[in-house]
Amino acid sequence: MTSFPPAPARAFASDNAAAAHPSVLEAVLAANDGPALAYGDDEHTRECEARFRDLFGADVTTRLTFNGTGANIVALATLLGSLPGPNHAVVCTDWAHIAVDETGAPERALATKLIDLPSSGAKLVPEQLAELSHVQGVQHHAQPGVVSITQATELGTLYSADEIAALCDQAHSLGMLVHLDGARIANATAALGGTRAALRAMTVDAGVDAVSFGGTKNGLLGAEAVVFLSPAASVGSEYVRKQVTQLPSKMRFLAAQFNAILHDDLWIGLAAHANAMAMELHRLTSAINGVEMDGPPAVNSLFPQLPPDAIGPLRDWCFFWDWDVSRHQVRWMTAWDTTTDDIATFAQGVQLVVGG
Amino acid sequence: MTSFPPAPARAFASDNAAAAHPSVLEAVLAANDGPALAYGDDEHTRECEARFRDLFGADVTTRLTFNGTGANIVALATLLGSLPGPNHAVVCTDWAHIAVDETGAPERALATKLIDLPSSGAKLVPEQLAELSHVQGVQHHAQPGVVSITQATELGTLYSADEIAALCDQAHSLGMLVHLDGARIANATAALGGTRAALRAMTVDAGVDAVSFGGTKNGLLGAEAVVFLSPAASVGSEYVRKQVTQLPSKMRFLAAQFNAILHDDLWIGLAAHANAMAMELHRLTSAINGVEMDGPPAVNSLFPQLPPDAIGPLRDWCFFWDWDVSRHQVRWMTAWDTTTDDIATFAQGVQLVVGG
Amino acid sequence: MTSFPPAPARAFASDNAAAAHPSVLEAVLAANDGPALAYGDDEHTRECEARFRDLFGADVTTRLTFNGTGANIVALATLLGSLPGPNHAVVCTDWAHIAVDETGAPERALATKLIDLPSSGAKLVPEQLAELSHVQGVQHHAQPGVVSITQATELGTLYSADEIAALCDQAHSLGMLVHLDGARIANATAALGGTRAALRAMTVDAGVDAVSFGGTKNGLLGAEAVVFLSPAASVGSEYVRKQVTQLPSKMRFLAAQFNAILHDDLWIGLAAHANAMAMELHRLTSAINGVEMDGPPAVNSLFPQLPPDAIGPLRDWCFFWDWDVSRHQVRWMTAWDTTTDDIATFAQGVQLVVGG
Amino acid sequence: MTSFPPAPARAFASDNAAAAHPSVLEAVLAANDGPALAYGDDEHTRECEARFRDLFGADVTTRLTFNGTGANIVALATLLGSLPGPNHAVVCTDWAHIAVDETGAPERALATKLIDLPSSGAKLVPEQLAELSHVQGVQHHAQPGVVSITQATELGTLYSADEIAALCDQAHSLGMLVHLDGARIANATAALGGTRAALRAMTVDAGVDAVSFGGTKNGLLGAEAVVFLSPAASVGSEYVRKQVTQLPSKMRFLAAQFNAILHDDLWIGLAAHANAMAMELHRLTSAINGVEMDGPPAVNSLFPQLPPDAIGPLRDWCFFWDWDVSRHQVRWMTAWDTTTDDIATFAQGVQLVVGG
Repeated sequence: MTSFPPAPARAFASDNAAAAHPSVLEAVLAANDGPALAYGDDEHTRECEARFRDLFGADVTTRLTFNGTGANIVALATLLGSLPGPNHAVVCTDWAHIAVDETGAPERALATKLIDLPSSGAKLVPEQLAELSHVQGVQHHAQPGVVSITQATELGTLYSADEIAALCDQAHSLGMLVHLDGARIANATAALGGTRAALRAMTVDAGVDAVSFGGTKNGLLGAEAVVFLSPAASVGSEYVRKQVTQLPSKMRFLAAQFNAILHDDLWIGLAAHANAMAMELHRLTSAINGVEMDGPPAVNSLFPQLPPDAIGPLRDWCFFWDWDVSRHQVRWMTAWDTTTDDIATFAQGVQLVVGG
Repeated sequence: MTSFPPAPARAFASDNAAAAHPSVLEAVLAANDGPALAYGDDEHTRECEARFRDLFGADVTTRLTFNGTGANIVALATLLGSLPGPNHAVVCTDWAHIAVDETGAPERALATKLIDLPSSGAKLVPEQLAELSHVQGVQHHAQPGVVSITQATELGTLYSADEIAALCDQAHSLGMLVHLDGARIANATAALGGTRAALRAMTVDAGVDAVSFGGTKNGLLGAEAVVFLSPAASVGSEYVRKQVTQLPSKMRFLAAQFNAILHDDLWIGLAAHANAMAMELHRLTSAINGVEMDGPPAVNSLFPQLPPDAIGPLRDWCFFWDWDVSRHQVRWMTAWDTTTDDIATFAQGVQLVVGG
Repeated sequence: MTSFPPAPARAFASDNAAAAHPSVLEAVLAANDGPALAYGDDEHTRECEARFRDLFGADVTTRLTFNGTGANIVALATLLGSLPGPNHAVVCTDWAHIAVDETGAPERALATKLIDLPSSGAKLVPEQLAELSHVQGVQHHAQPGVVSITQATELGTLYSADEIAALCDQAHSLGMLVHLDGARIANATAALGGTRAALRAMTVDAGVDAVSFGGTKNGLLGAEAVVFLSPAASVGSEYVRKQVTQLPSKMRFLAAQFNAILHDDLWIGLAAHANAMAMELHRLTSAINGVEMDGPPAVNSLFPQLPPDAIGPLRDWCFFWDWDVSRHQVRWMTAWDTTTDDIATFAQGVQLVVGG
Repeated sequence: MTSFPPAPARAFASDNAAAAHPSVLEAVLAANDGPALAYGDDEHTRECEARFRDLFGADVTTRLTFNGTGANIVALATLLGSLPGPNHAVVCTDWAHIAVDETGAPERALATKLIDLPSSGAKLVPEQLAELSHVQGVQHHAQPGVVSITQATELGTLYSADEIAALCDQAHSLGMLVHLDGARIANATAALGGTRAALRAMTVDAGVDAVSFGGTKNGLLGAEAVVFLSPAASVGSEYVRKQVTQLPSKMRFLAAQFNAILHDDLWIGLAAHANAMAMELHRLTSAINGVEMDGPPAVNSLFPQLPPDAIGPLRDWCFFWDWDVSRHQVRWMTAWDTTTDDIATFAQGVQLVVGG
């Protein structure tokens, strides 16, 4: 039996297992300074909306929501609702969170088909959209209406801004709109330059119509923002949000959280740290005999294959989730609060149980 | 125990208990003359579409459907689908077939609220629509999107063409669209002049956006038509029809039925006869002691109140349905095939059991 | 122009305009003590579930949700999902929040009809349910499946525990289940004895199947709980919650809020205070000439009718919402943080602008 | 330019392009013999229900519907409605008509996910169902509830009765129910023995819960039947049928069609003929140089690959549909009314344009 050192203070289960950042809690406390009207008619929400306009442009519309599934559905339902005709289909990859990890919530709320295309690295290419044109105009087939891509993807890969722009061009030329599921858009932004310009390049400049802008995985207590990047894309979104149960009553407490991390681009810093920790974890474990892994991570997750016997003891010591049991593949995920000590200790454990 | 004469050959249960008109069956037989492509790509459907353009105008789009609930939902789903934003509500009366007699099919297929307003004689007035403006723009309330009226109504009453025009004006001024459930539009047409001009006055000229044009209750085996009265109103209706399970495969056999009754305005003649039979039934029974009834019927139904003890024996002899049990009110309905003999015999029975 | 004193620190807009209670924030801070697995696999959620079992009984299942609409839909969708057959209808009053104030969210998520019955004081009576039996078994009518009542009601009235038990008996005898929308169940509990026994008497003892247990209006940052009162009623509720977008990721931060107010029955104390403040407001304003109002409030809201000219100036000074504009009726609502000073000052203002 | 002989009287587009059988029309004419109550309360419908009980067993429940999509949705909605919990997913192949050719109607009516598994020859195997067990019990994944298989499949292949039994056993052991889309079940029955016993072996004896029993493609004007093979499977199906718009008003005219082909097992004879004609077409064309084709067909469709230049001229002469354009693959389909002359003439044309 392996004799492990004391486990890292923070395991590698998920970035949504991380705590909230202290400045987020301070902001919530500060927002609790007396009464404020509900449903967004308060100064914190107005500040938040202004901050998102600063980030993306004067024309954007921001709708705060509770969680990621809710954000995706507010975005998709609004975009689909702007298309005349039947319930249009949503196109995504076969790894998409909306297709795989949301219990059919999109099909229930949208009453429409998700066309999940096979993908390499959880990324779509424009040619796949072009091929959809053969079902357009045929009354027997679901009509594609919105493309939903994820950035960073569910596999920890990234689209370049140019790749997203090419997808948007293709989609728009077919009359389709584009949603970007950015549950980890901060990690993507950090990885692609770490600037607001990098964010804009892969969203508003690329032609994306609506973004699910993640917060919960990046140090919030729990809040997401749907940002509609043009006035046309946002029509009716306030009703849609209520209709799909995502209208927060005391909205100021969600807005304050975002205000805290949008201040001074803390959101980029937190994600950059998480990314760096994943890189460091890769550096310390990829050479261990018995650990099979791709090259350095693009963002904050690693998907190593381990010797079958090693997985149980290692996880009992420091928790992480399986990824693909049939291949003995697991997922190690870092977060804004992962420390170099956590990494070093964990790598030591991996060495003991796998490399030993 | 009353000693009745032989019962009428045709009872007064409903116009959908009537047989199909011989010319309808002849047309179906004639259409069965070899192969024809499915889903409407056939000469009978093309003829049918042309006949509806002759009837309503060059710009209309016709979608054949199987039944009345299907027609209503194809119409409503298409109109709602043309409105940007959330799932808009449908406004109707508290007597509306879509609200009362369709098992919640509209709510299921449309995933939206039906706002059923109180009504006098199953008719809406423009003021009721105007009052809806107070919920427009409030994110907590369902946003009215389509008004659905019934002509002739579920209570056998009629809107004048001017009344429909006023409703359409009010609806359109509020950004709403108008659907007319015309399961018995033939009876209404017959009652309001008996001409194609009368039909147009209360539909396309009045500003209605889509009509459910009934056939089954007017001598068909079973077919209805949704007629979209402007190109804008019909966008996507071919996909919507399939999506709500109303796309007929061997469509020629539905089209042929309509072609038979649209020829030489047989549809108006059949309905005029049904109306006349109801008038005759009113003439022969309204003066019978114990029969309480409103004045002469507008179309083909009577709603008499009878002595409680009379209802059972009378119905056992010649079937009809209850209407409001608490008031001892029943419904007598005539059809295209009701004869004056049927009427005379039935009136004799009423006299025996009620007036005796 | 009226010369008002400085406005009360807290207006009378709504109990969801109130701040969060300090102990709630302390609990959230304390819960932010390092990593914790997401989606409820954490000690705070386990404590919360245990606290609800203490409150209602060992057999109950608790599902935390984000907001009241979400809680209602998780409850209704789960109860409806347990009934075999078609999409059953939900029965409620014409004042019900689910029917009037949720933008058609129930119809969208449940794809079913809400049968909103006329009511006196926003309360149903068993006879209304009994009358629904005439549509049971008729294939043309939506089949009632769940009754949803609200306690305290949207009009600030209360059901007695016996009244709820009678409704439950009637519903169950017709094969229907019962949901209680308890957005203000704390205020009802405080008003009906202020004990846990009072809560149980009107819920689990009365035969209710599922409760939306409100928190947000009673001092939380934002959290509600759906409590299923029997194992049979809760089947599948964990999937339903995710499917209707109400599964919180960092659930510990919602659980901690409830743990704070469930401790030492703080939730009852907070609501009792809000109720008492409404009573005091009634005492100080009901006698003012020009204020028309019912007798003392049952819970924490007043619905006075005011002289038309008085409403604007009074609201500009200290905010409240209109209730029925046509009758010059407004709503004044107290909360857990309303003070006697707030009340005294506000009454002074009413006296100035109305009574003066 | 090829000099073709006169084209066959019947092309090879689809079995739903075929005419109706004379005995079907005679039956409809005979049913038009006066009034009959609507919605199935008539002697023809009662006879039809009895005929299906004769066919499948005393416990089955039959619901007539208008078309195949409607039949599938009545079946699926009823089976899903009998499962407690969330909106369960439907499992099918990636060739399934419900997944590919119904414009997303199932997702719209059922508000749930279709899990379309990769397949060989459009057939599922039990191992694929067994693998679904890894998502059961995980709240983030759609819970599989119903398996839908097609017999004969969309690719003209067949399951053996044993294969279906094995699928049913696996499905039931996982708590799932089984739907069989039998739009061409007559062709399958004819191919697997041509007896009622063969039908029962692959349905009720195999453990299938509900069958869409096709009629339209087998000589009817237009009618399908949903047959629930146990009382438990059919609960609420009468309401579901109305709710998804598939309740025929003058139902006798659908029932009469089925009565005609169920008499003396005409339905098997018609399908056997169609199958034989496909076999003959294969015999006459498979050896033609340039025609690439699998072995003899199981039922009534061939999927030949042709030289690209041959397809256009051949189709202009005698219509058929493309199948896979990228592979120059087309579909030739026979029907109950295809004649040996049609086959001989068509084979002559193929020889001229391809083999020449």
